[in-house]
Order: sequence, then structure tokens, then C-alpha cells
Amino acid sequence: MAKTNPGNFFEDYSVGQVLHHAVPRTVTDGERALYHALYPARHALYSSDEFARNCGLPQSPIDDLAAFHVVFGKTVPDISLNAVANLGYAEGRWLRPVYPGDTLRAESGVIGLKQNSNGKTGVVWVRTRGLNQRDEVVIEYVRWVMVRKSNLDAPAPETVVPDLKKVLDVGDLVVPQGLDFSKYDFAQSGESHRWDAYNTGETIDHVDGVTVEEAEHMLATRLWQNTAKVHFDLTFRPEGRLIYGGHVISMARALSFNGLANAQMIVGLNGGAHANPCFAGNTIKVWSEVLDKAETGTPGIGALRLRLVATKGGEPFELRNEDGKYLPNVLLDLDYWALMPM
Amino acid sequence: MAKTNPGNFFEDYSVGQVLHHAVPRTVTDGERALYHALYPARHALYSSDEFARNCGLPQSPIDDLAAFHVVFGKTVPDISLNAVANLGYAEGRWLRPVYPGDTLRAESGVIGLKQNSNGKTGVVWVRTRGLNQRDEVVIEYVRWVMVRKSNLDAPAPETVVPDLKKVLDVGDLVVPQGLDFSKYDFAQSGESHRWDAYNTGETIDHVDGVTVEEAEHMLATRLWQNTAKVHFDLTFRPEGRLIYGGHVISMARALSFNGLANAQMIVGLNGGAHANPCFAGNTIKVWSEVLDKAETGTPGIGALRLRLVATKGGEPFELRNEDGKYLPNVLLDLDYWALMPM
Amino acid sequence: MAKTNPGNFFEDYSVGQVLHHAVPRTVTDGERALYHALYPARHALYSSDEFARNCGLPQSPIDDLAAFHVVFGKTVPDISLNAVANLGYAEGRWLRPVYPGDTLRAESGVIGLKQNSNGKTGVVWVRTRGLNQRDEVVIEYVRWVMVRKSNLDAPAPETVVPDLKKVLDVGDLVVPQGLDFSKYDFAQSGESHRWDAYNTGETIDHVDGVTVEEAEHMLATRLWQNTAKVHFDLTFRPEGRLIYGGHVISMARALSFNGLANAQMIVGLNGGAHANPCFAGNTIKVWSEVLDKAETGTPGIGALRLRLVATKGGEPFELRNEDGKYLPNVLLDLDYWALMPM
Repeated sequence: MAKTNPGNFFEDYSVGQVLHHAVPRTVTDGERALYHALYPARHALYSSDEFARNCGLPQSPIDDLAAFHVVFGKTVPDISLNAVANLGYAEGRWLRPVYPGDTLRAESGVIGLKQNSNGKTGVVWVRTRGLNQRDEVVIEYVRWVMVRKSNLDAPAPETVVPDLKKVLDVGDLVVPQGLDFSKYDFAQSGESHRWDAYNTGETIDHVDGVTVEEAEHMLATRLWQNTAKVHFDLTFRPEGRLIYGGHVISMARALSFNGLANAQMIVGLNGGAHANPCFAGNTIKVWSEVLDKAETGTPGIGALRLRLVATKGGEPFELRNEDGKYLPNVLLDLDYWALMPM
Repeated sequence: MAKTNPGNFFEDYSVGQVLHHAVPRTVTDGERALYHALYPARHALYSSDEFARNCGLPQSPIDDLAAFHVVFGKTVPDISLNAVANLGYAEGRWLRPVYPGDTLRAESGVIGLKQNSNGKTGVVWVRTRGLNQRDEVVIEYVRWVMVRKSNLDAPAPETVVPDLKKVLDVGDLVVPQGLDFSKYDFAQSGESHRWDAYNTGETIDHVDGVTVEEAEHMLATRLWQNTAKVHFDLTFRPEGRLIYGGHVISMARALSFNGLANAQMIVGLNGGAHANPCFAGNTIKVWSEVLDKAETGTPGIGALRLRLVATKGGEPFELRNEDGKYLPNVLLDLDYWALMPM
Repeated sequence: MAKTNPGNFFEDYSVGQVLHHAVPRTVTDGERALYHALYPARHALYSSDEFARNCGLPQSPIDDLAAFHVVFGKTVPDISLNAVANLGYAEGRWLRPVYPGDTLRAESGVIGLKQNSNGKTGVVWVRTRGLNQRDEVVIEYVRWVMVRKSNLDAPAPETVVPDLKKVLDVGDLVVPQGLDFSKYDFAQSGESHRWDAYNTGETIDHVDGVTVEEAEHMLATRLWQNTAKVHFDLTFRPEGRLIYGGHVISMARALSFNGLANAQMIVGLNGGAHANPCFAGNTIKVWSEVLDKAETGTPGIGALRLRLVATKGGEPFELRNEDGKYLPNVLLDLDYWALMPM
């Protein structure tokens, strides 16, 4: 019984190594519809082909986060099957929209390694890239995870900790070719607030909430071909199936429509923490904070740097306790850049 | 924290006002497949492109009720976010089939207002139209809801109660261009009963039932971009998430296949009441009554006026108690016109 | 109330009879995406259009089992609505891939009848064929079910028990036209094991498991337009909705990816037993046994005959007790042929 993939252990990684992840995936109108069934997604650029064409794109792209999840899912068997913890994200960039019919594959380069002092685990940093059928990079991001050692006697590798940007500069962000908000229809997008209306430091309570169900998060996580046992197998984790962190991200982003309807495209991921685990029965509510604003250089298109916080049940609108630890009701603390009409 | 949409209150409406609802939506084969996963839908015209072509259409349309739900969903943030009750429907007409690839938007005109004597709420009548990307009206209907006032001091508007048809005349119904049942395949449609076989006053017990689940009604309601909190947020409604009335309508219509397999297209909605709330765990069973029959003027195509009743658990096949109130097991009482081969 | 379909009873069948099943169904990218949401399906040929093209096909087919379920679903109202038990499958062959846009219909010929000695039930054997819009047979299989008599006085038919192959010969299997594994990408498929690496008698524990939910199996079963009450109506079966056996087959096949990633196409079904009923809350785990190996005659394409066993919870990896009866944790025992690169 040795033909199954045991996943990689800490000692299997080396800096400079490149992993070509299986399985390529064609995304279609089916994935697009399912995204709208799984999340209360309403951003007009992704909902209406006509709206997208009016913004200079050939049609609605697949949701930016759906593209992220497809790429992420491919990395799980190679990167996080034996992970103890998903520690962070950085330098995430969306470089090209993904359209129905595109086929995505993924590869990761190991850019950092650090064995923990206990000798039983270590941290692995990878830079993952998602590519389409024309070998164009559509997304890239850095992720680091704590991974178990299988052979505790394996020597510790040389410690390499990559130097990562805390926050992407606006110049790092890629405005999709052709994107043009000059004929943007604010009546159809759902809100009149444009980039100019948001102020750094402003917070927005997005009001709406969704009580999540087992069937839903498993449908989503399977759709992204994420195979981590903890999400599916109650005998593996009798205390409750852990909801894929990306499910919380997509739910939170969709819920943020109400107040950020014109934050149309996600183009940068500065960082993120899954502060506490999410389980079926939790009610996800969301608030945002405007962390920064910048002009992109493309006329009429501004960038907002936003903190997206998902909580169980909403209030209080605080992140941390006196000791600097995340409050127990905080599920997600995400830092991203979005494009908005000016 | 003021960028979110609080919805409209009674005093925000005026007769003659037109609301252009966000967000346009492109429907695709994905929505079509999801409709078949969410409901036991089997009407052949919507199941098979070949069957549809054999009936003179270019391919299978998106289910008539899916088109209705997409249009209805868009109106929720503007019409019923602060509604106390959904009071009724009238003069609903399907004017053109919706096909995969079409993009729908919606607008509503306020056609009636009546403040209630308590001064805290009022009834708003709107005529809603769904339009495709060619600005053709695909569906229109009147709906009235009871809406809260926010400012109790706001003056009562002049009372305007629209004069609505209790029942659409057969001449009001639109037979889709090209529809032709002359080569209709009764073996493939599932039943041999044609229009001629149904008699006014006849009732049909559709036998089948579905016990509904939380995940399913939320997937459906999100798919139609309906944002009403009561359907999703258990902290908002701890006594149980209320199932979107349209979910019950679609479930009931699909279950009515068994006995009405040839009632292919819904073309008119005369009225409807959500008699009692539906919750996860309820088992929806359905019976129909033939209320009327008419020839459409298009050769070979008849219209049946049908009452569609959804209940919790089936029997008894009665609607009301001695006082004229709906029995507690009745969920839906819908009055519609369908097209059928003669 | 007599317009609904009561289904056929044992006395309604005669050997040589052909049943043309309603309702034809067009399958699309929507069904393809839903298949990936419902099952942890990762076989590359079905996941990536590019991978499929690299293997000589025009694009990814609809999953072989999805095609089976669509065809099977159509037979339920005519064959198994009054069935007491689904007794077996034999001589199942996939003759042509099904692609998005294809429309499937089904017909069955009655090939055997045997009334049981109690006089109340009998066994019906049917050979079912699924056809596409070009009247090409895409799938065929034999199935036998025990069906109730309605009229106990109806005379017993002459007993005809068809002579069925216990196992299909490799020569019975159809390699899809154009299929070519000469440029097969083992990095992208997920595993390096080719046909040559598998040995008869070898068993594989596929490790992964999924705890199944009510909403999921109902979504799937509806998607295939299977109308059997036992899967949907808790008032009809208060002890729990029975999960459609095909849902367990698809879940098991998808879970077998881990260790059989290159067993790309199912081309033959030798037999199968739903050993014990499956209910929501069960955790499906899977193991396989290599029963046989053969060359197909097409260069580079081998066939593996596999036993696929789904269990509740995994171990022990045994099928039967001392008396030859299935162990209570065994859900499925399936015997099939798959194509694999050599």
C-alpha cells in the first residue's frame, strides 16, 4: 500500500527547489456560477459580461479569489499535506484576469527554510505562481507554513529567511490591460462611492452575515481541488471539520460588497492571518478598514489598501486584546489592494 | 460606518418613481446546471437543447423561474430590505425566453402607496421589469410589500392603490416567437397527457416530496443574489433562517412535473401567497388544481391556469380552515398560466 | 388524481420490450463544474482541456460516471420506482466520451424476468443504452432489480435469465478514438505510476475520506434527475434518506485518485454491489485491489481491472465475514476496467 502520496516533510525541501504541482484545471462558466452560489458575490465586473465589456474587458473574469483558490488548491498535496500551521501570505499579485475556458496550473519555488528549535518541525517559504494555457503568469504569492519532519535525524538545512515586503507598493500592482473605468455605471454597480470618497483610517461595518454550513464549505473546497483531510473527514478530526481558510476569505470579500461595491478587482495581497479556526455553524460577519490610498497611474483607476476582518457574529470591531493577541471572535485579518474608479 | 445601503423606508418612495436596480447578471450554462441540482426539474424544454430545437427554440432557455429569481433578487436591496411582509404578486408575464449568455438587469416603477393606520408601516406597490442586454423586457410583474417607516414623523403620502387584474386574460400571455409543438415528442417529455386531457376543477397530487436543507436554500438564494438577511444569518433570526419564498416556488414547480410534465413554459403569474414560512427540515409536497383552460391563438398551443400548492408533508389537500385562513401546513398558494401542447 | 406516473410493476414487463425513457438532458460545463464540487475529482483528463488535448481528445469529456448517472437517472421512473432492491450490474461499457453540449437520452430493453417463489416480487433484467444527439451509443450496461407486483393474481411470466459475462474481456473494451498517451505528462497528472507499476493482487489504501452531508447527495442525485423518493423525502423514509448508490460510486472513484491518478478513463463495469446502505454522516473511505491487467491493443494504453471498495471509516481492508457476507462497514464493492498509460 505504497502508491499514495504521503506529501513532503520538512527535510524534503531545499532552497531553490521548484515544485510543479498537479493537476491542471480548466475553469468555466460552471465555476463562475458556483462561485455565485457559494458566496454572496455581487461585484458587477464579475457578475455581468456587459458591465465588464463596458470597462474594457472582453467579458467577466473568473473571480480573483476563485483563481487564487484554484492555484492554492494545487499546492496542497506538495506543500501543506503535513503542515502544522499556515503561517502567512505576502507579495500576492494578480497579474492577468482569468476567463472561462482558461486552464490553470501551478508551480512553487522554495525560497526559505528554517528548522524550529524543537527539531521536529520547520518553516518553509514558497513563492507560488499560477499560469494559464499560454504560460502567462496570472497570479503569484508567497506563503509560509510550518511542516513536520518525518525523519527527526535529518540534518537541519541552512536557515534562509526571505526578505519579503510588508506591503506591496502601488507600483507593484498590475492594472489589467484595457481596464477603463471612464464609462463606469455607478447605478448598476450598486453604490455611488468612488475612490475619492474613502479616507485612510475609515472603517466600514458591512452589516450582512452568513451562518455557514458543512455542505457549503466542502463543495467549495472540493471545487478548488484542495485535498487537505481536515476539511472533509470527521473521523480524522472528530472535534469538527476545519473550514478552509480561503472559504472564509471569499465569504468575507463577498460580504464586503455592501460598502465596497466599487472595490472591483483584487490586485494585491499584502498579508493575511487566519486568526481563529472557523467551523460550520459560525456566522461570518465582516468589517473593513481603509489602510491606504494610491493612484495607479492608469487614468481614473485608484487603488485602496484595505484590511478585511471576518468575525464570528460581528461586534466588537476590534482585532486584538491587551496582549496583542487576536480576539477569539476574529477569524480573518486580510490586507489587500483593490482597484476602484476615481 | 455609513457607506452601507440601509435600504429604502416607506417614506422614501413616491408614486411614479423609477428604481434602477444593481447588479446586472449574466446567466450561463452554470446557472442552468445549478438549477437542476437545486430542484428536481425535469421539464424537457429546459432539460434538452435538442428537445427545445424540436419545439422551434434555438436551445433550452434558462428556467422561467430562474429568470424570475434573478430579476427579483436585484430588487431586494431597494424594495424589501426593510419589508415586514411580502404581500402579493400580480400581472406577472414572461415576455421572452432567457438563454445562457444573456445578461439581465431590473428596474421597478412605484405604482401604489398606502400608509397603514398605525403610522409605522405602509404598503408599496411596484411594477418590476427584467431586461436583457438588448434592452428587451423578458419578464414583468407587480409585487407589493409592507415596509417600515424610519422617520415616523414623515407625512403620509396620498394613497394610491393600483387597479390590478385578479387574473391575466389569455390574450395577455405571450407565446415565445417560434414556439411550435407540432413535432412535440410525448415519449421524451415524460407523459402523454396533453392540454385536452386536463379539466377545469381537476386536482393532481404530485406525490413526490423533498426534505429541504439549510445549505441548499442558501446556495439557491445566493445564486439569485438575493441579500435578505433572514435567509442567511442565524444570529439575525435565531428562531431559524427563513427560506426564500422563491425557493419554495421553484421546488413546488419542479415537483409538479409528475402529472404536469407537458406544462412546459410558465408565461403568466396571476397571484401568489407564501401562506406560512418554510424552514430547513420541512418536507415539501405539492398538489395542483386546474383553474381554467384557454387556447392561445397559436395553433397547437394551449394554456392551463393552474393553482400550485406546496405543503409541509402533503395531505390534507385543502387550503383553508373554516375561518378562511390558510391551514398551517400550507406553504405556497400560486396561481399561474402555463403553455402546453394541444 | 390519476395523472402521475405510478411506475411499472413486475407484471408490466415482458422480455423483448423496449422502454424509451424520458427526459433527454443536455450536459454542459455546468455539470462538469458541479461534478468537481460534489466529488474530490482530480483525474487530469477530466480536469484540464489542455491535458485532454495532449492525449488526443478534443477537450475534457464529462466524467464517465456523470454520464452513467445521467443515463441511469432516466431509467428510474420506468425501472426502479417500485423496486425493492437494486441487485446488480454487468457488461457495462463506455463506448464514446460525452462532451459538454451533448444531449443524452436512454432506452432499455427487457432481457430477463423471473418471478420470485413468494409470488409478490420478481427480478427484471434490462440492458440500458445511453445515446447522444447523433444517436451514437455512449454507454450501455445491464442492471437487474427486484420489483414488486401490483396485481398478485397476474400470471408469472416465463422465466428468462440472461447469460451475462462475469467479467468483460479486454477485447470488449472500447478505447476512445484518438486517445493517445504518447505525450502523457506524469508531472501534471499527479503520479508517476504507470500501468507497468501495478501488479495483480496489489491493494491500495487511498487514505483520504469524506464525511457526507444530506445537502450534497441530494444536489448530486437531483442533478442526474434521479427521482427515487428514498433519496429525498424524510417523511417517506423516517429512518433516514438513503444515499443514491451512484453517489457512493462517484465519491469512491474520486477518492481513489490518490494511488490511481493515472487510471484515467473508466471503460468497463464488470459488476457491483451496494453492500450496505449509506447515510449522511458516514465517512466514506476507499481501497482498491488490482484484479487483472491487460493490453488494449492500442499502443501505450493498458487496462487495469480494479476492485473499488468504499467503506464507512476505512479499516479493516476486508470485504466479507466468515459466512461470506459483506462486513457491515462495506458500502460498495465495484469491479471495473480503467485505461492507463503504459
